[in-house]
Amino acid sequence: MAVDVGGTKAEAALVRDDGSIVEGTRSRVPTGASADAATLRGAIDELVRTCAASPEWTEVTAAGIGSAGPVDLPTGAISPINMTDVRDFGIVDAIRASSGLADVVLRLDGTCIALAELWLGAARGIRNAIVIVVSTGVGGGIVSDGRLVAGRSGNAGHVGQVVIQQVEASPAAATVEGIASGPHTVAWAQERGWPGVTGEDLAAAYRAGDPVATAAVARSAGAVGVGLLDAATLLDLELAVIGGGFSFVADDYPAQVEAAIRAAAVNGYAGRMRVVRAELGGDAPLVGAAALVHRRDLLG
Amino acid sequence: MAVDVGGTKAEAALVRDDGSIVEGTRSRVPTGASADAATLRGAIDELVRTCAASPEWTEVTAAGIGSAGPVDLPTGAISPINMTDVRDFGIVDAIRASSGLADVVLRLDGTCIALAELWLGAARGIRNAIVIVVSTGVGGGIVSDGRLVAGRSGNAGHVGQVVIQQVEASPAAATVEGIASGPHTVAWAQERGWPGVTGEDLAAAYRAGDPVATAAVARSAGAVGVGLLDAATLLDLELAVIGGGFSFVADDYPAQVEAAIRAAAVNGYAGRMRVVRAELGGDAPLVGAAALVHRRDLLG
Repeated sequence: MAVDVGGTKAEAALVRDDGSIVEGTRSRVPTGASADAATLRGAIDELVRTCAASPEWTEVTAAGIGSAGPVDLPTGAISPINMTDVRDFGIVDAIRASSGLADVVLRLDGTCIALAELWLGAARGIRNAIVIVVSTGVGGGIVSDGRLVAGRSGNAGHVGQVVIQQVEASPAAATVEGIASGPHTVAWAQERGWPGVTGEDLAAAYRAGDPVATAAVARSAGAVGVGLLDAATLLDLELAVIGGGFSFVADDYPAQVEAAIRAAAVNGYAGRMRVVRAELGGDAPLVGAAALVHRRDLLG
Repeated sequence: MAVDVGGTKAEAALVRDDGSIVEGTRSRVPTGASADAATLRGAIDELVRTCAASPEWTEVTAAGIGSAGPVDLPTGAISPINMTDVRDFGIVDAIRASSGLADVVLRLDGTCIALAELWLGAARGIRNAIVIVVSTGVGGGIVSDGRLVAGRSGNAGHVGQVVIQQVEASPAAATVEGIASGPHTVAWAQERGWPGVTGEDLAAAYRAGDPVATAAVARSAGAVGVGLLDAATLLDLELAVIGGGFSFVADDYPAQVEAAIRAAAVNGYAGRMRVVRAELGGDAPLVGAAALVHRRDLLG
């Protein structure tokens, strides 16, 4: 059983050991950002009921959970940043209690997405890579020397919070996410007189050659490139995989990111990192959560 | 046998499995930055001769080499950045040929220093840590999930080349090393009218309360802090260990670095990283090279 807890919803499905989702088992429960522990516990019970109604439930041996961070692996607890009333929620125990499964593995959602790309996507066979999701936020996961990085509490991979500019009033404004995310990029363009509202608007303006949209996309790709370069410098990575809705703002977004890496690299090994698009789409969080069970050999 | 190849010298010693250096085996051969492959091969032969003259040579089973980067682990070759005529030098094969030892392990010098602190120093028992050396350059090594990080070619840990500011004319000027190293910090103070010349002068001026020296030290510690924060954000690290001559420019240098981390942290887990001084001094490179043999359990 694969479970994905986001900022405003929880989702689950049964996933086979080839990564395919068992038909009829996938469901999603909107919790809202105002969810508390009871709401989340209720959502989990509902998701488990849907999975347990499948004839294939008898073959389920374990559960994998991906969650919005921060997580705390030693205690199996989560405090999703957007669910402000859910703090230190023991999700591992909650899934155990609800499902009857003893074997439950928790990781950060970005870790799960990286694991999915490593298992079945663009990072297959790669031993040193970073997977980044550029969307409303910017997150990611890292594989280093053939193993998925967890870190002390399980929060490794938060590439969005890497500081890449001089910190002035707000540290968040100097981070990859504070510069490159969809909303921040749209806001930057609007401040310069661009009249659009959404990321889709920005994509259309970019295709039409609008100069502010062009500059906004370049600024986002440049910040993502420097964040990825810093990861490549620290970890000697071979590949960066880019996914997330905002990465489709421009067909050449990955190429722009790669160009930014080349331009800012001091060390040759870091500047050689390749950049490609993610191969798994919206299924990546669930597929990656399932891989916590099916591909334990890749865990750190 | 432990071997350390720096920018202008090579050094070796026999090191026991408790980390102690066998008396009379330690020697150093200055090669100069103008060394070529033949110079380096000659230096290696000289170092091996000194080691082999020891009665304990009969007990030597393997060699560990730490080298200035970049290194290339798959081919066992080094291209030390300051020895511009030494490129793709097969040091693993050279040590094998000179010593008769078949079992030879190569890693970056920063990796070895981190391994030494992990084995016998300030990072004992820590599973997620970064070790940084602040000196003429800024280097380091990383332990993640209990294993030393090598990366694709072995160059992981180059924290000095992490970009932390807007890249303008020169990417190098936007890196941790380009801001925080001893020479860059001294130059920054001189440009502001400070009359001193060396890092020792700067340390004295700092102790005397000179305002430019105070600002220069704060700037260096701030840049190191942001570089370490970026590593902590990406890898969820528990501890940073700071060594290197320039870190002694101020008694409270580690405390200033820690304060910079706290001030710039967006994520709680990253901001909680502790900062301490290294415990091993000038022996760290050789002790760490020896640990490549004695503590293989810590290698990635």
